[in-house]
Amino acid sequence: MVTSTDGPQAPRTVTLLGATGSIGRSTVDLLLADPDRYEVEAVVSGRDVAALANVARALRAKVAVVADPSCYGALKDALDGSGIEVAAGDEAMDDAAARPVDWTMGAVVGIAGLRPTMAAVRRGGMIALANKECLVSAGDVFMREAAEAGAEVLPVDSEHNAIAQALTSGRAGEVSKIILTASGGPFRTWSAGEIARARPENALKHPTWTMGRKVTIDSASLMNKGLELIEAHHLFGVGADQLDVLVHPQSVVHGLVSWSDGSVVAGLAPPDMRVPIAHCLGWPVRLRTNVTPLDLARVGSLTFEPVDHERFPALRLALDALSAGGAAPTVLNAANEVAVAAFLDGKLSFPGIAALVATVLEKAAGRQGLVSAPQTVEDALAIDREARHIASESLNMKLADA
Amino acid sequence: MVTSTDGPQAPRTVTLLGATGSIGRSTVDLLLADPDRYEVEAVVSGRDVAALANVARALRAKVAVVADPSCYGALKDALDGSGIEVAAGDEAMDDAAARPVDWTMGAVVGIAGLRPTMAAVRRGGMIALANKECLVSAGDVFMREAAEAGAEVLPVDSEHNAIAQALTSGRAGEVSKIILTASGGPFRTWSAGEIARARPENALKHPTWTMGRKVTIDSASLMNKGLELIEAHHLFGVGADQLDVLVHPQSVVHGLVSWSDGSVVAGLAPPDMRVPIAHCLGWPVRLRTNVTPLDLARVGSLTFEPVDHERFPALRLALDALSAGGAAPTVLNAANEVAVAAFLDGKLSFPGIAALVATVLEKAAGRQGLVSAPQTVEDALAIDREARHIASESLNMKLADA
Repeated sequence: MVTSTDGPQAPRTVTLLGATGSIGRSTVDLLLADPDRYEVEAVVSGRDVAALANVARALRAKVAVVADPSCYGALKDALDGSGIEVAAGDEAMDDAAARPVDWTMGAVVGIAGLRPTMAAVRRGGMIALANKECLVSAGDVFMREAAEAGAEVLPVDSEHNAIAQALTSGRAGEVSKIILTASGGPFRTWSAGEIARARPENALKHPTWTMGRKVTIDSASLMNKGLELIEAHHLFGVGADQLDVLVHPQSVVHGLVSWSDGSVVAGLAPPDMRVPIAHCLGWPVRLRTNVTPLDLARVGSLTFEPVDHERFPALRLALDALSAGGAAPTVLNAANEVAVAAFLDGKLSFPGIAALVATVLEKAAGRQGLVSAPQTVEDALAIDREARHIASESLNMKLADA
Repeated sequence: MVTSTDGPQAPRTVTLLGATGSIGRSTVDLLLADPDRYEVEAVVSGRDVAALANVARALRAKVAVVADPSCYGALKDALDGSGIEVAAGDEAMDDAAARPVDWTMGAVVGIAGLRPTMAAVRRGGMIALANKECLVSAGDVFMREAAEAGAEVLPVDSEHNAIAQALTSGRAGEVSKIILTASGGPFRTWSAGEIARARPENALKHPTWTMGRKVTIDSASLMNKGLELIEAHHLFGVGADQLDVLVHPQSVVHGLVSWSDGSVVAGLAPPDMRVPIAHCLGWPVRLRTNVTPLDLARVGSLTFEPVDHERFPALRLALDALSAGGAAPTVLNAANEVAVAAFLDGKLSFPGIAALVATVLEKAAGRQGLVSAPQTVEDALAIDREARHIASESLNMKLADA
């Protein structure tokens, strides 16, 4: 059952959309570890000009693009004499993403990642996908465009990457369940009353991963796992009834596939994002990394528990949105972004996040333009804007009530 | 990364070598659960005539063969009027194994399984392999004959089956480590002094699996895991330096593959042999079984610890025999069989098992006919006989000394 192969011969051409964030930096690490294997076409970032210029020089990129147009001059200066092309703004991002390469890292954070990642998908090739919104807010569109362009979507999230690896041991129709693990976040052992009084600094203390503020809050509410279930639905073509979550505080087992014959195949890894990124970067060949190998004897114990939906209602909201389909997942994601920002601003309690999302989903249900699934990126962006608007309104009404 | 397929169209033709033991009975369960999918050619058993006749009738086999020639009349009577052909003896077993079928279960226990399983391999097709000796005592011959005949060897042991499933997620040259788990057996938490005083009834209490007496003792000494490492070497083409054992008392994770990029893929299953057998029986398609699915939330905790080679020296003996190569694994296996029988007879202490195996390996080293790896089944059988002879001699000397 084992086949042998040599590595790829010609250098792989690569573009990084989101080159200076956490995923981007880990990707750069891997590229620099074996520079002859890659040729970097474009590096794209939001506004961190100094970091972007450093990355562009280190990788000898052909073009560097900064999203914020006001940063153009600074980037131009920083790359002066390097021979690296410089551009700025949304259209320049899309153009950079559309330049032909073998492999693209789609790691622009948030809804801003939708357009450039879609531009990369339309051009075909391999897309290592770290942006959540492409699948949560526009999953049908994204996967359809990928299929039409012959683009191969490689999941970067540790959970989806683990599941993609486990899925090689069978065929689509043979899957019984796909199970994502959740660390359970900082409130795993807190009572409902304690969670009700939780402050942002409590929620920002994630037990196992160091991530951005938004995703850390989502991990505390388990909304993050809900968004990941929606992603899993699009990536692996399974419905809500075949998706499950297990709380696993050690974050060593990232995902499991339960097969029709009773076999279960699981993906494990040390908590280092270079592992799933390397899996995508080498695909279909595996790279050799210097990541410290997982030592289960040292870890000692792996524990698993069911999700408590009473204390963590966000997960159920996401599952219901997935079952409802249509625009619901797009609305859910937009409302959650507004709610998390309000919590971080001290304007909403922690349970208020899920409550606001539920309110927005109710208000959106049946409202024109917020029912059908988005058919284009523009549709998705319009639904996202409208849902944010409803969320802000609902938030202000709550604040006025209080 | 997921492909879809339909099930196989024509019924799969099947032969069971070892139809009435534990593996055979589980295989029969699976065959009877979906009888239209299979056509049974031959069923073979050692001496349990009544059970063999029942199986032959239930499966509508074309031929039933009993190994013990003295059982011929009884089997003939038991199958009278059934239209099922009847035969007995070693050559009849080999002939039955050589009849053309798509799939053979090789579950004859012990060195007696070598010849008929090899006959099945030579004829090609898929061989679900449950017999240890084919790989431990004659691994090079067995795998060479399988390759020449284009036979596909499918491992039935839960550990090797799990690893075969995990190995689909990469290529041979990308494997960093292959890790087999061991329950640790009944003496996992015993001191060396307690183990020295262990009696057969203590060793026969296996914590998680119900198996035959020989393999239960081997599990207590960890020699079973040593033999499995030798099997893994032949099945997966990796050396002793890439093989490892983790003690995992819950026996839920059966095997793990650690990849060059840091990813780890693991095979899990509930402790029900129908799961790995079903994986082999359906291969390359997965069957749908009614096995109770693994519920990790209910299991709660999975623990892992390193092997204590001081208290369990048998594992190191097996690893050393694997590294030494040549006839050493064949000698190891034969000596261990004699030693386990002596322990069960009260003639040897529990630590005496590993001590006797070590003595025989030392005596065999350099002795004519006991150095080179067996080139044929007959070679392997001759080495096995000679090693058993040395083991019995050494045992009698020890007993005379005592």
